[in-house]
Amino acid sequence: MTPQRVTLITLGVSDLARSRSFYEALGWRPAQAQEGVVFFQMNSMVLGLFGKTDLAADQGRPGAELGTGAMTLAQNFATEAEVDAAWGAAVAAGATPLKRPEKVFWGGFSGYYADPDGHVWEVAMNPYWPLQDDGSLILPGAQDVH
Amino acid sequence: MTPQRVTLITLGVSDLARSRSFYEALGWRPAQAQEGVVFFQMNSMVLGLFGKTDLAADQGRPGAELGTGAMTLAQNFATEAEVDAAWGAAVAAGATPLKRPEKVFWGGFSGYYADPDGHVWEVAMNPYWPLQDDGSLILPGAQDVH
Repeated sequence: MTPQRVTLITLGVSDLARSRSFYEALGWRPAQAQEGVVFFQMNSMVLGLFGKTDLAADQGRPGAELGTGAMTLAQNFATEAEVDAAWGAAVAAGATPLKRPEKVFWGGFSGYYADPDGHVWEVAMNPYWPLQDDGSLILPGAQDVH
Repeated sequence: MTPQRVTLITLGVSDLARSRSFYEALGWRPAQAQEGVVFFQMNSMVLGLFGKTDLAADQGRPGAELGTGAMTLAQNFATEAEVDAAWGAAVAAGATPLKRPEKVFWGGFSGYYADPDGHVWEVAMNPYWPLQDDGSLILPGAQDVH
């Protein structure tokens, strides 16, 4: 079996400087930046930016056209106002608006935007999923899996 | 600014039962399974499986063809043996092998596989990134961002 765990999310990008600038415009600060790769510390895990061509080669399929959109990253918030603010900040930083935050059928409030390479972020408030004080998301009735 | 945080990763899938079975074959156990969606508790965050068509609509672009591969999820381990074991378990569960784990140029040991919908997972050992006792990844010199 494998652990129910993700320690690193890597985004394949076509222009590393452009992508780094986008995330920095959100207020993010890299923990490491080396030739061809930038790493941001997140919540007990890491987000990396890495050239899309390099990523395809690293995956063992040089030349492959890698796609985006079917894997999304969400940031959950405690309030609708925080969701709106996060969405607005991203669009102000140059994100492509996909869906302005709105009330959704499952009872929450959710919007989407895409980063400069089309990587999709959701910003959401789910009243049934209260966040922990430290921003962690532990599902009701679940145990954390660290 | 937005927090340097991800609370939910959603994978758009074409056959929810098939995808659920794949992750269960890795030893994963859902914390919630409702009509059309399955959630696994991970390390202070959540992995969701959701229909790809539904996901496109949720993103505000019904009918869009969502792609995979340019955003990868990595599991870091302490040893090469653990990396090999995780890769082997995934392939045994039906994953598509992309790259058998091998020593790589940056000094670590890394392999890749794809899940039934082409979502790409890396399994890796990075000698410069020791894991915390609880499996968290905090970059050397960085503070956790919770």
